[in-house]
Amino acid sequence: MKATVYQGNKTFSVIEREMETPSKGEVRIKVAYSGVCGTDVHIYHGMMDKRVNVPVTIGHEMSGIIDAIGEGVSDFSVGEKVVVRPLDDRGVKPSDKGFNHICEDLKFIGIDSPGSMQQYWNVPAFTLHKLKQETDLKLAALIEPLAVAVHDVRLSGLVAGETAVVLGGGPIGLLVALVAKETGADVIVSEVNENRILKARELGLNAVNPTKIDLIGYVQERTKGRKADVVFEVAGVQPALDVMTEIAGIRGRILMVAIHGQKREVDLFKFFWKELKLIGARVYEKEDYEKAIALITANELPFEEMITDVQPLSNIQQVFENIDNNPDGMKVLMDCQA
Amino acid sequence: MKATVYQGNKTFSVIEREMETPSKGEVRIKVAYSGVCGTDVHIYHGMMDKRVNVPVTIGHEMSGIIDAIGEGVSDFSVGEKVVVRPLDDRGVKPSDKGFNHICEDLKFIGIDSPGSMQQYWNVPAFTLHKLKQETDLKLAALIEPLAVAVHDVRLSGLVAGETAVVLGGGPIGLLVALVAKETGADVIVSEVNENRILKARELGLNAVNPTKIDLIGYVQERTKGRKADVVFEVAGVQPALDVMTEIAGIRGRILMVAIHGQKREVDLFKFFWKELKLIGARVYEKEDYEKAIALITANELPFEEMITDVQPLSNIQQVFENIDNNPDGMKVLMDCQA
Repeated sequence: MKATVYQGNKTFSVIEREMETPSKGEVRIKVAYSGVCGTDVHIYHGMMDKRVNVPVTIGHEMSGIIDAIGEGVSDFSVGEKVVVRPLDDRGVKPSDKGFNHICEDLKFIGIDSPGSMQQYWNVPAFTLHKLKQETDLKLAALIEPLAVAVHDVRLSGLVAGETAVVLGGGPIGLLVALVAKETGADVIVSEVNENRILKARELGLNAVNPTKIDLIGYVQERTKGRKADVVFEVAGVQPALDVMTEIAGIRGRILMVAIHGQKREVDLFKFFWKELKLIGARVYEKEDYEKAIALITANELPFEEMITDVQPLSNIQQVFENIDNNPDGMKVLMDCQA
Repeated sequence: MKATVYQGNKTFSVIEREMETPSKGEVRIKVAYSGVCGTDVHIYHGMMDKRVNVPVTIGHEMSGIIDAIGEGVSDFSVGEKVVVRPLDDRGVKPSDKGFNHICEDLKFIGIDSPGSMQQYWNVPAFTLHKLKQETDLKLAALIEPLAVAVHDVRLSGLVAGETAVVLGGGPIGLLVALVAKETGADVIVSEVNENRILKARELGLNAVNPTKIDLIGYVQERTKGRKADVVFEVAGVQPALDVMTEIAGIRGRILMVAIHGQKREVDLFKFFWKELKLIGARVYEKEDYEKAIALITANELPFEEMITDVQPLSNIQQVFENIDNNPDGMKVLMDCQA
């Protein structure tokens, strides 16, 4: 079988190795597609060198078909289409208060242990979600990032008739915007890259460029002074933090989806004055995966348009180099059988 | 009648003037006691010069007895004991979404219009809450700050069995701690002033000095690794912001009670990682006042010990100068009839 291996120092190799028999409690998946996540790009940039044990196969946004079943696994059969929810919460403790998905000793499969950018992948059976046999496996590779978006929107409490502003129109931002719009909210995407704005509009979203229009005035006017009920901070930059507390209305909820690697300046006075809420949101829970699977199965949102490139495993080095050189792209999938 | 007047530039005067007949919809209150709030001290320091129209009588934490009734007021009688909820929300708009207590055009009585540090005070009848005739008017002057504490604890969702850490042991911090403890939570007060620590302990609270012990380790150990379920940030200083995201456990709620006059550094990564919530909390709603009144009426908490000084109106200049020179004091009341 073919496998990609991240070697550190911005370098991937593609190797041939033996398939492994699944251990007790595991299944082996014939991986169909594996999406490139922003986290994978962070790993490639060396920003997670302390956490990632090279050489290692990365990847955690995937779809596939069960190929072999280990001892003690009874709920799954060879040939079933599945996705992996890549959270290994076997280290959960009482002090985690039942929030297994963010438990202190969580291992993220594909970062802390080998991932999906290979032809065959062995994973614990408890990570699996079944798909219907008619599900498109290309679209199914979007289930993991879509579950992030579903989780973010669910924690925001967004309801029909409210206004949501999504700061940042990358893959997660646009998925958040699609899910938010699906709830019946009025959704505004704020993004500085003109090509990403075009992509957002192609998806049927209302997207604006905050370097070209007065975003605060725009939100103020569009909501008749009510401002945003929910703001999703998905940009991860200081200007987004500066604007989020301005565009949020009274008792507005701000979802912290972006990963800020350093302390940032925040206008806490606005939190006091308008009784704003800042809500941290990380990964997903089981119900978010189920909702994401239902959305992909129904296929009523423009998921197809989110996928901007599909490349064979053998091109992995070039894929990561291209992402660096082309900030316009959206979701790239690795075809793990090619 | 006697009235105090803030003249600006850290100067109060005490004057004699005619009592005014209450206008339509107003009552005249014979003020019993008026507490000195941190906001009053801010005004005295000139920090609210842009907002406060000097010369003006300030004060908003009070108790009193109805002395005269204006036209159209039918729910109140002369002789009834009352407190004022000093929020003039007559400018409320649909864009305030029903959150009248923090509506955009809110006028705070005692800051934006004349306050209670005088013998008689005319206020709109809609601001009044009745007290039982047996209620101690000295304690009743604590109802306004106690309602702030009740609001903060209510918005935190704190329940019995949880652990709360209160950062800052001033008057609001200690009232928050008393109300939090009353819910059945384990409460830790973190305060750097040793005399305030002693006062907290006199109130039956568990108080520690974060400059003398390792607060993070202490919370970690006391909660068996669970860390704080709720953190109340009442200190208003950067070290409190640095520690709040460390001591909050998974899905911990951090209440932003302090007023930060400038942007501050916040560890947003911790919000993402532990799915923390930051919840802004300002003033109070009607139900918070009702709960505060019930607590003062029941008088089962050590409210008496919160009052560290009672001074006649004629001493107002000295009272504010003393507060500057003596950070150990807790709540000072002006006796508005002396």
